Amino acid sequence: MSLKSFASDNTSGVHPRILAAMERANAGHARPYGQDPYTEQAKEVFARHFGPDIDMYFVFLGTAANVLGLRAVTRPWHSVVCADVAHINVDECGAPESVTGSKLQVIPSHDGRIRVMDVVPLLHMIGNFHHSQPRVISITQSTELGTVYSPAQIRALADFAHANGMLLHMDGARLANAAAALDVSLAALTRDAGVDVLSFGGTKNGMMFGEAVIFFNPELSREFNFIRKQGMQLISKMRFIAAQFIEMLHDGLWLENARNANAMARLMADSLRGLPHVTITRPVEANAVFARLSPEHIAALQQDFYFYEWDPVLHEVRWMTSFDTTEEDVREFTDAVKALG
Amino acid sequence: MSLKSFASDNTSGVHPRILAAMERANAGHARPYGQDPYTEQAKEVFARHFGPDIDMYFVFLGTAANVLGLRAVTRPWHSVVCADVAHINVDECGAPESVTGSKLQVIPSHDGRIRVMDVVPLLHMIGNFHHSQPRVISITQSTELGTVYSPAQIRALADFAHANGMLLHMDGARLANAAAALDVSLAALTRDAGVDVLSFGGTKNGMMFGEAVIFFNPELSREFNFIRKQGMQLISKMRFIAAQFIEMLHDGLWLENARNANAMARLMADSLRGLPHVTITRPVEANAVFARLSPEHIAALQQDFYFYEWDPVLHEVRWMTSFDTTEEDVREFTDAVKALG
Amino acid sequence: MSLKSFASDNTSGVHPRILAAMERANAGHARPYGQDPYTEQAKEVFARHFGPDIDMYFVFLGTAANVLGLRAVTRPWHSVVCADVAHINVDECGAPESVTGSKLQVIPSHDGRIRVMDVVPLLHMIGNFHHSQPRVISITQSTELGTVYSPAQIRALADFAHANGMLLHMDGARLANAAAALDVSLAALTRDAGVDVLSFGGTKNGMMFGEAVIFFNPELSREFNFIRKQGMQLISKMRFIAAQFIEMLHDGLWLENARNANAMARLMADSLRGLPHVTITRPVEANAVFARLSPEHIAALQQDFYFYEWDPVLHEVRWMTSFDTTEEDVREFTDAVKALG
Amino acid sequence: MSLKSFASDNTSGVHPRILAAMERANAGHARPYGQDPYTEQAKEVFARHFGPDIDMYFVFLGTAANVLGLRAVTRPWHSVVCADVAHINVDECGAPESVTGSKLQVIPSHDGRIRVMDVVPLLHMIGNFHHSQPRVISITQSTELGTVYSPAQIRALADFAHANGMLLHMDGARLANAAAALDVSLAALTRDAGVDVLSFGGTKNGMMFGEAVIFFNPELSREFNFIRKQGMQLISKMRFIAAQFIEMLHDGLWLENARNANAMARLMADSLRGLPHVTITRPVEANAVFARLSPEHIAALQQDFYFYEWDPVLHEVRWMTSFDTTEEDVREFTDAVKALG
Repeated sequence: MSLKSFASDNTSGVHPRILAAMERANAGHARPYGQDPYTEQAKEVFARHFGPDIDMYFVFLGTAANVLGLRAVTRPWHSVVCADVAHINVDECGAPESVTGSKLQVIPSHDGRIRVMDVVPLLHMIGNFHHSQPRVISITQSTELGTVYSPAQIRALADFAHANGMLLHMDGARLANAAAALDVSLAALTRDAGVDVLSFGGTKNGMMFGEAVIFFNPELSREFNFIRKQGMQLISKMRFIAAQFIEMLHDGLWLENARNANAMARLMADSLRGLPHVTITRPVEANAVFARLSPEHIAALQQDFYFYEWDPVLHEVRWMTSFDTTEEDVREFTDAVKALG
Repeated sequence: MSLKSFASDNTSGVHPRILAAMERANAGHARPYGQDPYTEQAKEVFARHFGPDIDMYFVFLGTAANVLGLRAVTRPWHSVVCADVAHINVDECGAPESVTGSKLQVIPSHDGRIRVMDVVPLLHMIGNFHHSQPRVISITQSTELGTVYSPAQIRALADFAHANGMLLHMDGARLANAAAALDVSLAALTRDAGVDVLSFGGTKNGMMFGEAVIFFNPELSREFNFIRKQGMQLISKMRFIAAQFIEMLHDGLWLENARNANAMARLMADSLRGLPHVTITRPVEANAVFARLSPEHIAALQQDFYFYEWDPVLHEVRWMTSFDTTEEDVREFTDAVKALG
Repeated sequence: MSLKSFASDNTSGVHPRILAAMERANAGHARPYGQDPYTEQAKEVFARHFGPDIDMYFVFLGTAANVLGLRAVTRPWHSVVCADVAHINVDECGAPESVTGSKLQVIPSHDGRIRVMDVVPLLHMIGNFHHSQPRVISITQSTELGTVYSPAQIRALADFAHANGMLLHMDGARLANAAAALDVSLAALTRDAGVDVLSFGGTKNGMMFGEAVIFFNPELSREFNFIRKQGMQLISKMRFIAAQFIEMLHDGLWLENARNANAMARLMADSLRGLPHVTITRPVEANAVFARLSPEHIAALQQDFYFYEWDPVLHEVRWMTSFDTTEEDVREFTDAVKALG
Repeated sequence: MSLKSFASDNTSGVHPRILAAMERANAGHARPYGQDPYTEQAKEVFARHFGPDIDMYFVFLGTAANVLGLRAVTRPWHSVVCADVAHINVDECGAPESVTGSKLQVIPSHDGRIRVMDVVPLLHMIGNFHHSQPRVISITQSTELGTVYSPAQIRALADFAHANGMLLHMDGARLANAAAALDVSLAALTRDAGVDVLSFGGTKNGMMFGEAVIFFNPELSREFNFIRKQGMQLISKMRFIAAQFIEMLHDGLWLENARNANAMARLMADSLRGLPHVTITRPVEANAVFARLSPEHIAALQQDFYFYEWDPVLHEVRWMTSFDTTEEDVREFTDAVKALG
């Protein structure tokens, strides 16, 4: 297949090491539903990265990780505060509201990030039974606009949340890219920064499927086995998610993959910056490049490359790089962009 | 009781004519759940005001009228477009999302009204299964900020909705006040202007309880008997809602009540306009006056009068007038406001 | 109106004392949503009947009392154990499942009552995440088949529930009839017998509308203000429910009404027992008479009297008596039945 | 791993041909969310087996296939008629009720199968808004008790359903085993027998994960793309489900696998029949053997073999065979059972 895609980091396939690990896991019978030795081993591996007292659960995909993690900590009269551009607000077909019954309280974002000061006006609702009750702040790391929160920014949101009876949730579908960008550990951006519930993504970083929901306070996950099963996310042959994550978190594969994706985005941005017919619109901090081009140029590029128009009104496009994007892929693409000028 | 309230038009009691009608309905046994002669008669009365081919259902309260009306025309992957200040967004404790499963797509309002141009950017979502699907535009008449939509403004929203596969819902908790303000019929603001589903309020205009959900296209309400029952809004002794509405819609009582409330709001606003320590913040078109005062003045007034601070950051207050507000009530209040200056 | 109804105790109207109390409550303005003095007084009255440490909330109707009371103590992966004939299973259009998200675990009943031994086989599900988790046992007092649970029977179910991490819920739409039948206090059948959550009915005993949800452990109701509001059951002019209950629970009106209904059912059963063409099918312990007749006799009676065929296969009918049923009403009816023979 | 399991057909791993097909699919980038060429090809393959005018969707797992298929054809006031032993009733943690909002109307089964005559008593509910409305009959093929429905039995249920405004849903997690047992095509048991919605299982027959929801009337699935996405079942790298199904349905692999599982169950049953300390309790028609043993014998066997006690009261156990169960596996097991005698 010769599809040249910068549409998303999920148009790529599976890293060869991951696939090989899945094959190795296919030996004989194993207890289903997470009682297998692979899942046991995976829990130890996660504990090494995220801390010993976490509670970790596998699910199939990122939307489920977000929605079920939120369900565990909300009741339908609670609301989830999130950015206007948040994946949970825009790209999950209303699953958060439908599955949790809760309201999303949408606040403006700034290059994808939200700030404490934009949550403050919601505090007056707390305790008033006419209003949905703010219960969780949800942030995305790296953000939907390719930027990252620093540990200090996360800590500020966590402290504010906790001081007001709320929790901090992180959609970490691309957490690996943020950790690679900031050169910090996975724990530094989550547990150590005050995150309560985390969706940790695997698919976008080279796995076939599989994400993890991590609770940093086991009190919050007491009933999560039921939530996951009822949420239709309990895989019977769980060893095939576990084996992927074990390999991913072994020997720094997660970091290597994320670094490559980030580097390719930087290379792309650096190659295009300064062109008169292209405007890079967002800070390039992880593995996405946002840019504005003329509609004609967009259409011309889409003849040969697969990517989305992010904002059809502003003609802003998103180009995602992946664990398997090569310098040659980028050069071929940037040459094509340059040739439009 | 000597409570002097401008908090809401539901702090008032029941109009004496309404109460008398309830008493008259308390004669002998009647078939329950709407099979009684009062409900039959009420349907005829509604048909005279709203048109012969409507489908009308009683519920207990306004939140239920809105939420169940919306439930009838949505599935959980649909979204409801509404104003930031909409009652369904702010004051129903997340019931719309919880009961319908749908997302609210909140757009900015202008003195309480929304415009077609603010809905347009949502159209690109239609057909894309990653996004919740815009299905209904919901407006409030008169609005939460005491303004009204003209028939032409409603028609524009209805035409836009219908042209894009959407419907128009109206929260008419204070529809009577809007009709009185514009001096038009109830049908002119609803059926004739393209509204598909209407919540028609009784409680705020002098009833004890009871609202009506009206569908102008019976195709939309085919299963509403089940929705109302499952929505916990099917009153067994329905004659006591029916009798109230029959009286309200007879001899112009609804209009008389609404006119008085509106007139008292105008009187209040006229009396206060020009005072240096009070700023009227919204057009006074129905039965609400919004104003800004200093926090000290607000606190002083709340010693003697019951009303809400609408926006605790801006110190904007809301004063509602009611069917039973008298000129003397208003004068007593405005004198107190003036005395603060 | 000359409808002669034995269909339900809600075909009757409102007791004159109740109606007069509602009129008296219609004086001036009052704070809405339960902050009024009537609601305060009602709480004191309830405490006298049910105990000082209860938490009590008004809702509009019995289905809501049941469903929201259950919602307060369940999550969607819990199940509610109830009788096959339970109102929540048969007559609420699936509202319990739809609103709480929970499963009903239906077990067989014996003249309307359930037994501990029929709940025992469900215990093995507890802790297994493939299965919905039994969390509440729900019983109806008096039952849907006109029988009553003794205090000892209730206590046995409560003790069993509590010993297994479950709660006991009581649908007390006709609790007054049960207390009258057993000649015990309302507390004896609820708080003193181990009930955790109670729906206490008013409508079927002579009120216009209004039921109360009572929690005997305030830990269970911490968020019920939100549940009621989101459940579309928070009446703005709450004084009009409160005033009804104050009157009902004053001077023994509740007991007088219930006693009359029960006595009329006994009178009816006694008059019909022994007739060759009528079989009384259930013990007549409260205000219902169940009987089997030929389809022709049923049809003939329904010409003049309004009642339901309870079981269309067995031709079992239900005749309910009410607070306002008179001996003359019963005699007229039993004469008609006898004349069929 | 040396786990010897007869617990479920999902304790086995992945068939080598399936795994090889997944590897081949891991070539380059592919459009996500089902726009890839593998999914296109899979649709053609399904059309060859199930008919040209079907509408087919991949999901991750069987619970989701059932629940979302049912969601597509129900509203929350509808009910789903199913057997007491149905997977949707017992083993999905209440997901059907929670996700669809609908009630399950549970009826008795006979060796796992339900009959038209047990559905008939529910018909009187239709049209009465106090009752949840029977909308779908759901059957499992092969059943949870290892029996199969004949095409004629399915047709009878389908005709009855259609004659009464209902639909027929089939949980076909083990449809392959039923087709193998009856020696008929997949279409003969579904489309040709009147099934409206089918869950077609892959995981239990040798796939890693992945099931298909098939609608035989595209009118029913018009919004299923939204239902699947909101239901958290839209895999981004869909080619990896598609490739598995393509291989499974190619060259009769599905049939070969199912035949082996069925043959091993027959072998096991034949070897055990007549033993004094074992009673085979259900007809062995597919790949399950149900038997009663003493609790001591069960415990002894579970030392060496992994299986479930199906009914802990009756001490009835379930032994499932799989695509990879060998005659040697069975002999080793039956020898162990015999040795207990």
